[in-house]
Amino acid sequence: MSFSDHFSIQNIPYGIATSSSHPQKAVATRLHDHVFFLGDLPIQTSEDIKQAFAHTTLNALARTPKDKLRELRSALQKVFADEQTVKKYGVPVEQVELHLPFEVKGFTDFSCSKQHLLNAGEASTGRRMLPPASVYYPIGYGGRASSVRVSGTPVVRPYGVYHQDGGEGVTFGPSQGLDFELEMAAVIGKPSNFGERVAVKDADDHIFGLVLLNDWSARDVQKLEMMQLGPNNSKSFHTSISPWIVTLEALEPFETSPPPKETPAAAFLQDPKEKSSYNISLSVDVIRNGVSSTVCKAQLAWMYWTFRDLVAQQTINGCNVNTGDLLATGTVSGLEDHEHGCLLETTMGGKKSIKLSDGQDLVWLRDGDEAMLTGFCGDGVGFGDVTGVIAPATLFEA
Amino acid sequence: MSFSDHFSIQNIPYGIATSSSHPQKAVATRLHDHVFFLGDLPIQTSEDIKQAFAHTTLNALARTPKDKLRELRSALQKVFADEQTVKKYGVPVEQVELHLPFEVKGFTDFSCSKQHLLNAGEASTGRRMLPPASVYYPIGYGGRASSVRVSGTPVVRPYGVYHQDGGEGVTFGPSQGLDFELEMAAVIGKPSNFGERVAVKDADDHIFGLVLLNDWSARDVQKLEMMQLGPNNSKSFHTSISPWIVTLEALEPFETSPPPKETPAAAFLQDPKEKSSYNISLSVDVIRNGVSSTVCKAQLAWMYWTFRDLVAQQTINGCNVNTGDLLATGTVSGLEDHEHGCLLETTMGGKKSIKLSDGQDLVWLRDGDEAMLTGFCGDGVGFGDVTGVIAPATLFEA
Repeated sequence: MSFSDHFSIQNIPYGIATSSSHPQKAVATRLHDHVFFLGDLPIQTSEDIKQAFAHTTLNALARTPKDKLRELRSALQKVFADEQTVKKYGVPVEQVELHLPFEVKGFTDFSCSKQHLLNAGEASTGRRMLPPASVYYPIGYGGRASSVRVSGTPVVRPYGVYHQDGGEGVTFGPSQGLDFELEMAAVIGKPSNFGERVAVKDADDHIFGLVLLNDWSARDVQKLEMMQLGPNNSKSFHTSISPWIVTLEALEPFETSPPPKETPAAAFLQDPKEKSSYNISLSVDVIRNGVSSTVCKAQLAWMYWTFRDLVAQQTINGCNVNTGDLLATGTVSGLEDHEHGCLLETTMGGKKSIKLSDGQDLVWLRDGDEAMLTGFCGDGVGFGDVTGVIAPATLFEA
Repeated sequence: MSFSDHFSIQNIPYGIATSSSHPQKAVATRLHDHVFFLGDLPIQTSEDIKQAFAHTTLNALARTPKDKLRELRSALQKVFADEQTVKKYGVPVEQVELHLPFEVKGFTDFSCSKQHLLNAGEASTGRRMLPPASVYYPIGYGGRASSVRVSGTPVVRPYGVYHQDGGEGVTFGPSQGLDFELEMAAVIGKPSNFGERVAVKDADDHIFGLVLLNDWSARDVQKLEMMQLGPNNSKSFHTSISPWIVTLEALEPFETSPPPKETPAAAFLQDPKEKSSYNISLSVDVIRNGVSSTVCKAQLAWMYWTFRDLVAQQTINGCNVNTGDLLATGTVSGLEDHEHGCLLETTMGGKKSIKLSDGQDLVWLRDGDEAMLTGFCGDGVGFGDVTGVIAPATLFEA
């Protein structure tokens, strides 16, 4: 898919690209079906921003003050209004390779969806109940930053230790319960200081932009892990993010209110901003043997907790955030089967299958299956996609 | 305490220091009561190692191949055999400031002690049983790298959300259940590649050395967090490490066997090396109003899982380790009350107190209390200490 309509002049996302004419990684943006290396463009900007264009990650640009980033956005929109410039500097998107857009410093994965917590809890334990803390603040766990990869990187089926269905003891081998998780994440721009609490009202100042995120999960491995310390090896083998970071400035027209709080949130999470969430339509397609099946459609705005809440929660104890930190939503899910953002929920923990377009059954992901997540706001602003194909487990040699 | 006997010529640990004559952070070592900046010393070594001496972190030195590190160690021991050189270059340890020795890239905290799992489980849930996975592999969770600080940094009492004893609903405020955790951690030197499994037999090649680690914990905050995803904000406010990294080469004389496996470990954790653990005597002192009380004495060799196991476990699913990753043991504990490496265990979750030397009661840490962890191998090799004083919570402004 081209996703041309995701990348209008209203978007101006940032990424890291190379092409035959630009063999060194550098900062780029996308307009419809063309990619532009920012260092090429005739824009007037400060020396430090110009230097940031030549970096191999977005971290330097991301920590630039917001007012300067607004100026840059305006300058780019002005340049792109001129057809000659667009023609002169645009590289067709097919001729460009996109890379991990930033050095991922830290990664916390939260659980912002009440529906996911209820569905996943029921699938795992048979009980449909919320973790008690989840109504007071967004619960979360420490994800693994080192294994975050850009969209398109093959996802090698991981080894792990798990109970086999109906068996005694445990098995060590390739996971038989591979799943996707439909998520989004905030990318931290401005860091906070150790010991400093970022108030929920000031949180946007620290968010450079958002990405799509697929938190690949090995459900059989996870099942054993949940009996004490929470997810670890069942998630740390691979996390995929979209190559383009869409800035909060581009998302302003899509601001909307999150669901009302049923229980009063903790005092530090009482946000004076009403429209603290975003209207973003999300979907998951599974592609098997060239046949694509949409298995989930969901809305970011269903999330009970917002990205602003995540920044406040991460820092309320004095923990500092760094440029390049990922704060993710956890699985985005709704009430209905076709609104569930992972197979754990849709298949009730592997107990039932769903039908793909060509009538095949899907329980967990097979080798060769591809999962494609997309996010679209409307009016020429979207995230494109984040994809990954399951590759067979490599041979284990003792 | 001077810990002079921890830092004989048999140790040669690495750290990052400054002094009035060395205002820029640089690589240093310690011999008895003197610190030496490596860049000062008349040693013959390769250009890249010389350059690494001027870095502000140990990361560059840590990723140097082991054979080169052995040569460096020999060269330093040779230099220190000459009294004149020692006199000429040594800076008294009191005149030196020690800094966070490396950039912490990732942090996984495991749970290697069966006794801790049993004791902590009983303190938290009333049931004395092991998490099922913990006999097959070392269970763990993703810690927070951004808030790791060097020994001596004050530990500010964190805010959090928790149930108050006997109360309904939840409280948001400064934690009332501050605890230490006696741990050690491996510091990764040589990185592994994404998708590569590090075999347990090869794990030492990736470990630069070990540090003492205090995984400060807010037990009231943690109690709510354990009901789903495991520890997060209850730990991420502060983790302390010792300033000196003791290399595996210095620890070779103290190699010993871990306890026998009662249940066969997963296949990838069957270690051909018998003496895969270390004899290290650990202790915790609590200092209140200038009075020091030893509240724990424990042995690293009691751990059911070894640092070699941790490297294998972290990478078995293809997750890569980076130079500067911390892989920690979790609380080191024994059977007896005076062998428990945290107050959660010693006080059975705050239900009983222990007596300090001057007769005062200790349940959780108070503002002003200091916790000091030490580690000593014998024969002139030790870790010195890792300390932290509890500072009052800062005022919360909404």
